[in-house]
Amino acid sequence: MTNASPIPVVVNGAAGKMGREVIKAVSQADDMTLIGAVDHNPNYMGQDVGEVAGCGELEIPILNDLQATLVMATQEKVQGVMVDFTHPDSVYENVRTAIAYGVRPVVGTTGLSSDQIKDLGEFAEKASTGALIIPNFSIGMVLLQQAAIQASHYFDHVEIIELHHNQKADAPSGTAIQTAQQLAGLGKTYNPAKVEETEKLAGARGSVANDNIRIHSVRLPGLIAHQEVIFGATGQIYTLRHDTSDRSCYMPGVLLAIRQVTQLKSLVYGLDKIL
Amino acid sequence: MTNASPIPVVVNGAAGKMGREVIKAVSQADDMTLIGAVDHNPNYMGQDVGEVAGCGELEIPILNDLQATLVMATQEKVQGVMVDFTHPDSVYENVRTAIAYGVRPVVGTTGLSSDQIKDLGEFAEKASTGALIIPNFSIGMVLLQQAAIQASHYFDHVEIIELHHNQKADAPSGTAIQTAQQLAGLGKTYNPAKVEETEKLAGARGSVANDNIRIHSVRLPGLIAHQEVIFGATGQIYTLRHDTSDRSCYMPGVLLAIRQVTQLKSLVYGLDKIL
Amino acid sequence: MTNASPIPVVVNGAAGKMGREVIKAVSQADDMTLIGAVDHNPNYMGQDVGEVAGCGELEIPILNDLQATLVMATQEKVQGVMVDFTHPDSVYENVRTAIAYGVRPVVGTTGLSSDQIKDLGEFAEKASTGALIIPNFSIGMVLLQQAAIQASHYFDHVEIIELHHNQKADAPSGTAIQTAQQLAGLGKTYNPAKVEETEKLAGARGSVANDNIRIHSVRLPGLIAHQEVIFGATGQIYTLRHDTSDRSCYMPGVLLAIRQVTQLKSLVYGLDKIL
Amino acid sequence: MTNASPIPVVVNGAAGKMGREVIKAVSQADDMTLIGAVDHNPNYMGQDVGEVAGCGELEIPILNDLQATLVMATQEKVQGVMVDFTHPDSVYENVRTAIAYGVRPVVGTTGLSSDQIKDLGEFAEKASTGALIIPNFSIGMVLLQQAAIQASHYFDHVEIIELHHNQKADAPSGTAIQTAQQLAGLGKTYNPAKVEETEKLAGARGSVANDNIRIHSVRLPGLIAHQEVIFGATGQIYTLRHDTSDRSCYMPGVLLAIRQVTQLKSLVYGLDKIL
Repeated sequence: MTNASPIPVVVNGAAGKMGREVIKAVSQADDMTLIGAVDHNPNYMGQDVGEVAGCGELEIPILNDLQATLVMATQEKVQGVMVDFTHPDSVYENVRTAIAYGVRPVVGTTGLSSDQIKDLGEFAEKASTGALIIPNFSIGMVLLQQAAIQASHYFDHVEIIELHHNQKADAPSGTAIQTAQQLAGLGKTYNPAKVEETEKLAGARGSVANDNIRIHSVRLPGLIAHQEVIFGATGQIYTLRHDTSDRSCYMPGVLLAIRQVTQLKSLVYGLDKIL
Repeated sequence: MTNASPIPVVVNGAAGKMGREVIKAVSQADDMTLIGAVDHNPNYMGQDVGEVAGCGELEIPILNDLQATLVMATQEKVQGVMVDFTHPDSVYENVRTAIAYGVRPVVGTTGLSSDQIKDLGEFAEKASTGALIIPNFSIGMVLLQQAAIQASHYFDHVEIIELHHNQKADAPSGTAIQTAQQLAGLGKTYNPAKVEETEKLAGARGSVANDNIRIHSVRLPGLIAHQEVIFGATGQIYTLRHDTSDRSCYMPGVLLAIRQVTQLKSLVYGLDKIL
Repeated sequence: MTNASPIPVVVNGAAGKMGREVIKAVSQADDMTLIGAVDHNPNYMGQDVGEVAGCGELEIPILNDLQATLVMATQEKVQGVMVDFTHPDSVYENVRTAIAYGVRPVVGTTGLSSDQIKDLGEFAEKASTGALIIPNFSIGMVLLQQAAIQASHYFDHVEIIELHHNQKADAPSGTAIQTAQQLAGLGKTYNPAKVEETEKLAGARGSVANDNIRIHSVRLPGLIAHQEVIFGATGQIYTLRHDTSDRSCYMPGVLLAIRQVTQLKSLVYGLDKIL
Repeated sequence: MTNASPIPVVVNGAAGKMGREVIKAVSQADDMTLIGAVDHNPNYMGQDVGEVAGCGELEIPILNDLQATLVMATQEKVQGVMVDFTHPDSVYENVRTAIAYGVRPVVGTTGLSSDQIKDLGEFAEKASTGALIIPNFSIGMVLLQQAAIQASHYFDHVEIIELHHNQKADAPSGTAIQTAQQLAGLGKTYNPAKVEETEKLAGARGSVANDNIRIHSVRLPGLIAHQEVIFGATGQIYTLRHDTSDRSCYMPGVLLAIRQVTQLKSLVYGLDKIL
């Protein structure tokens, strides 16, 4: 991308489903160098991470020692980054360790409590180091949510349909609820009724929450992960839809986060903050 | 269409919203002649029905006397037809009268009870006359329902989304319930669960009825009348969707019914029977 | 909306299709007063504009004299606005006249040349008066275009499908071309090829222009006016769609423009500038 | 499924992408027994076919000898079936061999010429044996095409949009052309023009062929394989859409073909013939 030295990257949780995608994406990015790969799964210990990720030999073995790997990242000319897709139990410690070693964390692991996030923020602040916690790396979904917020200034009526495979147990999806919450944050009450509605079959009109925004959850085999936000006004409909077909869709967001975290001086939460 | 004499048509309820569309459609059909127009609304009495329908003068006044108008239809060389879009209170009597006068009824008026339909069926049988009662004249919707029934032999998972303007008070729509009932008639239980589902917000998963087929009802200004039947199986989705934007969409079904009723010898219920 | 005096509004071209919609919308807006209605069509001269627009008597006759009507608008306590949906031949003169009389123009009439727009801009500048020229009053479409521009910073692949009724003679639609031009303005080349493409049937891949953005135009009866912008990246699709079903969809944009033009000090072009 | 003996199945081309899916599907079907697996790829010789297919050990090694494997199938109590997903060069010989050994072929391999198909048909006829050649095993797509043919009796206007990933080199897709041909077969000319159309940008209106049916081909990363057939008439739109996300979508069609071929007495071409 530029003539600058490539960003040294360590992947923690490299043998997991997301970790493997990150290995592939980072090893193919011109402006990054994969420096090390860490995973606690004993099945993969010592194996070449490229072979495990399915993108050909990279001559980097999967190790069990995060600290030793972070040290390698600090020996490069430019600021190093650690991508963490590990486990709710270890992520807090991983992030503190990375910051302590002067390596900037990009965190996709879920499960950090608000207290832990606050604490990590203070720690990053003291160290004047950038850190990114990103619950959803999908750039398309964040763009959809930003466009929905923009539309909600002009449309008073909106409903959400989210569609997922039938192995998803909970409804509505967390992302659909998040979208509704973002729209609700504007402080108006959506969907003022025109008539008194009756449900001849209970549940037909979907769930109601968040300032009267209804969510409808469809579950079918053959679906993957889809969200549709439908705004209506007299004579017009404005629809925003995001379809995910593959875990690889998160990689542009991961690469963007790696590039941006090197410019930050504190902890930032959410992909929307760096778009 | 052919060299045969055109079908003489009487429209009962000619000044109503549907009646006006029928006037326009019949007066433009090559194989039909508009013979008479009846309506009880005193505001339109004696006015030219073409002017009222907005399609230019037709030199046919709107009258209040159904029987006199039916008589005119019987004086033509070929079998006459009465299209009825009137009122639940009068439709039964209208149909008996038409049959008694030897004019074949095509009925779009709702509200006939099953007893009344049975009774009219026997009356038509005795008179060896065709009659059509059509709750939904939308050819596209009937095609959708037939295609859905065909698909349901091969797909075990299906959900329905119907979307209407926010002046519609009841949910789900009658047509969506009808679609579900038709699929349910096959006697299998759809959507066997893969996981135990939880609704974090009540209603998110839509309504459940008819052998476990879920219906989701969206209501927004800007929508008109839309139905989507979504079949899912591993690796594929098959979607049938019908969008209505205008009352004129029913006219091909009305014209088809007028043509078909002249060939029938008994009462037939539903557009699907003549497609 | 507020306790402030309502904005006095004159509608020029009041008996046209758009003019009638504006009459309805303005007469129902709490923060506006309809002051006068002008139209050159002799059929409507002197008739009540509310009756003509189909929203009930408003006690405002349609007049032929723009200047006299503008004078009435200037006699109100607050700044008056003229909405112009007339004809390419008269719009330039109408706007100059309005500005000369101190009434602010909101112009939906098409056909002004760039020279004329420049000239009107200078005239408004000198008069320190606001003026709005709005080629497309659809808020939903402008939101779609703004969201598309935002998305184009992160997606390199995009195609446009526009769908219209089969009475539309030209393809692609002007609005779809405009969307493509806006994306092209970013200065990157979209849709870098992954393989060498072959059209087995000429035209299958749509039209190519504007930095390699393809547009596909569908024409069918039953369609009204629809545009879909589809962004793709590995593993994800992000779709923006706008459906218009009725001329009334432009009214929120017209009302917004009336409110905003009273705050402006110069000529502004395009609804996007005031969203 | 029943108490009958399971159908013995041999998979030829077992280590290929489709072959592996067939191995998984057959080994999980209650009414089938996987008897043997053949592949010429030396890399997999002797390996357990379940391990190669990724569904766990099945204790069936991949062999190179089709004839020996077919013999095993003939030693079962009930009629055996060979599924062939091999190569255009060998498929003709494979099918003759299977028929000669009394094992019924289900052929997904492409590339058979019409002469070859005719010849195999005569060979099957003489042997009074069933055989199935299936160019597209997608039940959903065949249902879509059948529903489209049904709709084309009532709609005169139709266009097709097909959307695929941007690694697909040719446009339109073979399946979209096939759909158009099926509709064209009805012998009417679709899409009679309402106005004289002009393409301001060449290609905007898609490709024209097959009795005037237009096809629009969209190519974007993130898409997989999608086809949409849109019928239009005044006031209504009827849309049929099929989305494929995964090769597994063909397996219900393969299993259906295996069950049906045992009931046939001659060669049958196309999944539509057995739906």
